[in-house]
Amino acid sequence: MEFMASALERVRKIKLVIFDVDGVLTDGGLYVGAQGELMKRFYVKDGLAITLARQAGLKTAIITGRYSAMVEQRAKELSIDAVWQGCGDKCKAYRELKKKFDVVDEEIAYIGDDLLDLPIMLQVGFAAAVGDAAAEVKHSAHLVAAEDGGHGAVREILEFVLKTQNKWENVIAGFRNTSITETPAH
Amino acid sequence: MEFMASALERVRKIKLVIFDVDGVLTDGGLYVGAQGELMKRFYVKDGLAITLARQAGLKTAIITGRYSAMVEQRAKELSIDAVWQGCGDKCKAYRELKKKFDVVDEEIAYIGDDLLDLPIMLQVGFAAAVGDAAAEVKHSAHLVAAEDGGHGAVREILEFVLKTQNKWENVIAGFRNTSITETPAH
Amino acid sequence: MEFMASALERVRKIKLVIFDVDGVLTDGGLYVGAQGELMKRFYVKDGLAITLARQAGLKTAIITGRYSAMVEQRAKELSIDAVWQGCGDKCKAYRELKKKFDVVDEEIAYIGDDLLDLPIMLQVGFAAAVGDAAAEVKHSAHLVAAEDGGHGAVREILEFVLKTQNKWENVIAGFRNTSITETPAH
Amino acid sequence: MEFMASALERVRKIKLVIFDVDGVLTDGGLYVGAQGELMKRFYVKDGLAITLARQAGLKTAIITGRYSAMVEQRAKELSIDAVWQGCGDKCKAYRELKKKFDVVDEEIAYIGDDLLDLPIMLQVGFAAAVGDAAAEVKHSAHLVAAEDGGHGAVREILEFVLKTQNKWENVIAGFRNTSITETPAH
Repeated sequence: MEFMASALERVRKIKLVIFDVDGVLTDGGLYVGAQGELMKRFYVKDGLAITLARQAGLKTAIITGRYSAMVEQRAKELSIDAVWQGCGDKCKAYRELKKKFDVVDEEIAYIGDDLLDLPIMLQVGFAAAVGDAAAEVKHSAHLVAAEDGGHGAVREILEFVLKTQNKWENVIAGFRNTSITETPAH
Repeated sequence: MEFMASALERVRKIKLVIFDVDGVLTDGGLYVGAQGELMKRFYVKDGLAITLARQAGLKTAIITGRYSAMVEQRAKELSIDAVWQGCGDKCKAYRELKKKFDVVDEEIAYIGDDLLDLPIMLQVGFAAAVGDAAAEVKHSAHLVAAEDGGHGAVREILEFVLKTQNKWENVIAGFRNTSITETPAH
Repeated sequence: MEFMASALERVRKIKLVIFDVDGVLTDGGLYVGAQGELMKRFYVKDGLAITLARQAGLKTAIITGRYSAMVEQRAKELSIDAVWQGCGDKCKAYRELKKKFDVVDEEIAYIGDDLLDLPIMLQVGFAAAVGDAAAEVKHSAHLVAAEDGGHGAVREILEFVLKTQNKWENVIAGFRNTSITETPAH
Repeated sequence: MEFMASALERVRKIKLVIFDVDGVLTDGGLYVGAQGELMKRFYVKDGLAITLARQAGLKTAIITGRYSAMVEQRAKELSIDAVWQGCGDKCKAYRELKKKFDVVDEEIAYIGDDLLDLPIMLQVGFAAAVGDAAAEVKHSAHLVAAEDGGHGAVREILEFVLKTQNKWENVIAGFRNTSITETPAH
């Protein structure tokens, strides 16, 4: 995990985390059947981190250029707060999200992997790239994950956010107590 | 494979092995279609080890927070002795399993990969983690597999149990005789 | 990325890029269900590169020996200019493409991975192999990608073409401007 | 690729090659849906090698303990000469194949990955293991592939057989001639 010294400062202000889908919540594989896209492969450890981040008070959102019913399914399971799919203009979706959650650029984190993510990454307070992001995306990120998309990058970045905001210890402590009464989605 | 010196002592007492599913019997991939989860990817070599462990006298069980029909299918194929899915409270499932099989904590092994597994791992006699488990899970395990979940970790851990209990040589000897009359599921 | 010194010269003349499918646009995995091939796994970053290459003025085509509806789906999504499937004779398809696009051998690039691709690779102006291509194919290629098929080889090769033709900087510049009005397929 | 000195001698006599399926023609992944096994992932480069081996005069067969319609589909596409599925007794299937093709042990090669394959591997003239085979299987093999199951092990082993039998150069020569009139399945 490489990051600029300023990353910690930036992360402390984050209230909303936005995810790209293909290549970020998945490893970029597009499983196409005879009728079109058949399924997406998400990653269970990323899912738990998203649930924990939400429980720790962060808002979560998805912005993606493609549209698929699979993203709706996964977002619903994880109770993601807002989903923007099939965005011809990712920046318009970004502006709408700012209004909806009443946050400013400095309070927003974005996790991306490819050129389409650059415009938003250049605006948000904290821009993170998955380990196998395009070179230009890594170059524009405040933090580059050691893990690849769909294989733990989102988990790694969210843990970094929660640790920096001193919320991780609380999360772990909950699991160390033996009587769990509600299991988070993952 | 790293393990504490006491691991051998612990493993000798094991009568029941409990598996988490996502990230343990699979590599953590969640294949989501338009209607929800479409399939899970299990691993054939893990399956053979589970069958052999059962034939060698060990009881086997699954406890998982998610629910899916795929787990029922796979559990049936492998004749797993008990399946607890969609557990809001994994510890409750654990207590029920103890009663059902009339075993105490020291006689139970659990294989996990993520934070949700911690409460049970802190109770069982032998806690094992897959190679790509979360850091906190590895830290709380008596043994960490060299292999990752869904790619042989379960096989590796069950072989370790059977070898420690001096049952593996018997298993292998069976396959070295040329006339097999019943093929185990795998 | 290994290439002969002449690769740059060859690449400057390219007007049409032809892709093999299995092992090039995918990692060679054939997902077979009870009724036959069920799906193919394409790669999102390859898709974006194909769209960008097309927008930069290159023609794109697919020639494949197998037939599947999935290839039609993916080709349509990416607006690939010509698709030849189930070719008993890949060279006939190649000759037809030359007529259709009114180009000569020197203006054609081909990306392949296995022996079936050799005849065309020996004819085109610029023959590229994916990183995990068969030894004989790598040997006959002007350029061998560092990345494997289905995991970024096509992206890498198309970036190399666009950079050599001085078109890449333009592409990137578009994404660095914050108001995108049309999102390319990927 | 490791092999005993005698491997070359053994390979020269081979007339029939038998494949296990899960872990050999696939990487051991079992894709289970709500109704049971949904699909298998085969590998295109293995397929081409099987077709070429058959065209070079070798007989091919499948023996597998599990049953699935996917194996029928794939075997048909590759024109594999005999398929034995759901074998309670792999050795019985093996004896039947010897009769059917009128061959003796020394003329048979078998490619396996796990304990269930040991009985046949101990009988055939040439026993090969995929790179990620179980330790006991590797130990009993005359040759261990560098590549893993489902990722080129079968291709590697068949190339080794064809090269040792001086048939590979012929195969390659065919592809170097530009006018192919019939494309082999892959």
